[in-house]
Amino acid sequence: MEKTKDIAVNPELDLVLERILPVTRQQVFKAWTTPSSFKNWFCPRPWTVSEAIQELHPGGAFITTMQSPEGQSFPNDGCVLEVIENEKLVFTSTMTRGFRPIQSHLPFTAVIKLEDHPQGTKYTAIAIHQDAAGRKTHSEMGFEQGWGMVIDQMVEEIKKGTI
Amino acid sequence: MEKTKDIAVNPELDLVLERILPVTRQQVFKAWTTPSSFKNWFCPRPWTVSEAIQELHPGGAFITTMQSPEGQSFPNDGCVLEVIENEKLVFTSTMTRGFRPIQSHLPFTAVIKLEDHPQGTKYTAIAIHQDAAGRKTHSEMGFEQGWGMVIDQMVEEIKKGTI
Repeated sequence: MEKTKDIAVNPELDLVLERILPVTRQQVFKAWTTPSSFKNWFCPRPWTVSEAIQELHPGGAFITTMQSPEGQSFPNDGCVLEVIENEKLVFTSTMTRGFRPIQSHLPFTAVIKLEDHPQGTKYTAIAIHQDAAGRKTHSEMGFEQGWGMVIDQMVEEIKKGTI
Repeated sequence: MEKTKDIAVNPELDLVLERILPVTRQQVFKAWTTPSSFKNWFCPRPWTVSEAIQELHPGGAFITTMQSPEGQSFPNDGCVLEVIENEKLVFTSTMTRGFRPIQSHLPFTAVIKLEDHPQGTKYTAIAIHQDAAGRKTHSEMGFEQGWGMVIDQMVEEIKKGTI
């Protein structure tokens, strides 16, 4: 069988966040895929992640419940599509465990790409949408800002050495 | 990384078709994944398949254009989720190439499972839906009858030796 091809980004439909991080690919991958670590950085504080289910195989559940400072819960259901250790993680909001389609208020597929870089790791987060309206909605919800902020929290978490 | 887990079928949401076929797993897999063969059996005759794009890797396109006897075209866009040669093929109508979400009039994920059987191959086709309404719609559109009919065409095609 052919290997997975690279994701084709369409700038009119998709959102891309690129950062060079002073940590290793292995550390970033672990921060993304270890629930006890993931919970410590994935939400812009003072929000928290109250639940993280990460079944790291195609068709596995990828569920993140975010909690507001007031204690309100916002569950985000999802499904893992692809996992290449220390290189790539792909999941979607349009399905849940077992590739079962779900109704999503924001249909998108997220791709986390990790590449070697002289200063550490080139980190790329891509959000793939079905149309320009999806891109716009996601951008207005603060994709770039939110996902950017939590990268700093992630690096901080990694540097603490708790991962 | 963990290997993909088996698909959990929910009888209230999903449709399952099981048949024992007097051909090998290899032949069935080839019939499903070789466009020139697939076109010859996937539509109940006198409908035909005018186009079949099958990119056999996670994130690859799975596009089937069906044509009515009057010459009208009905394109069905889809995305490959999983391929295990001679064992399993999974694709969905909720995405297209590159795991891009699409608006589907019938959101479902299809699983084709092939297992050894004393008489040849145990063939299982599963359609996974987001809710009972999706199951009902798909059933009323003739999933069992249509997919059942084309199995006979597939076996016929295999026996012709053209695959």
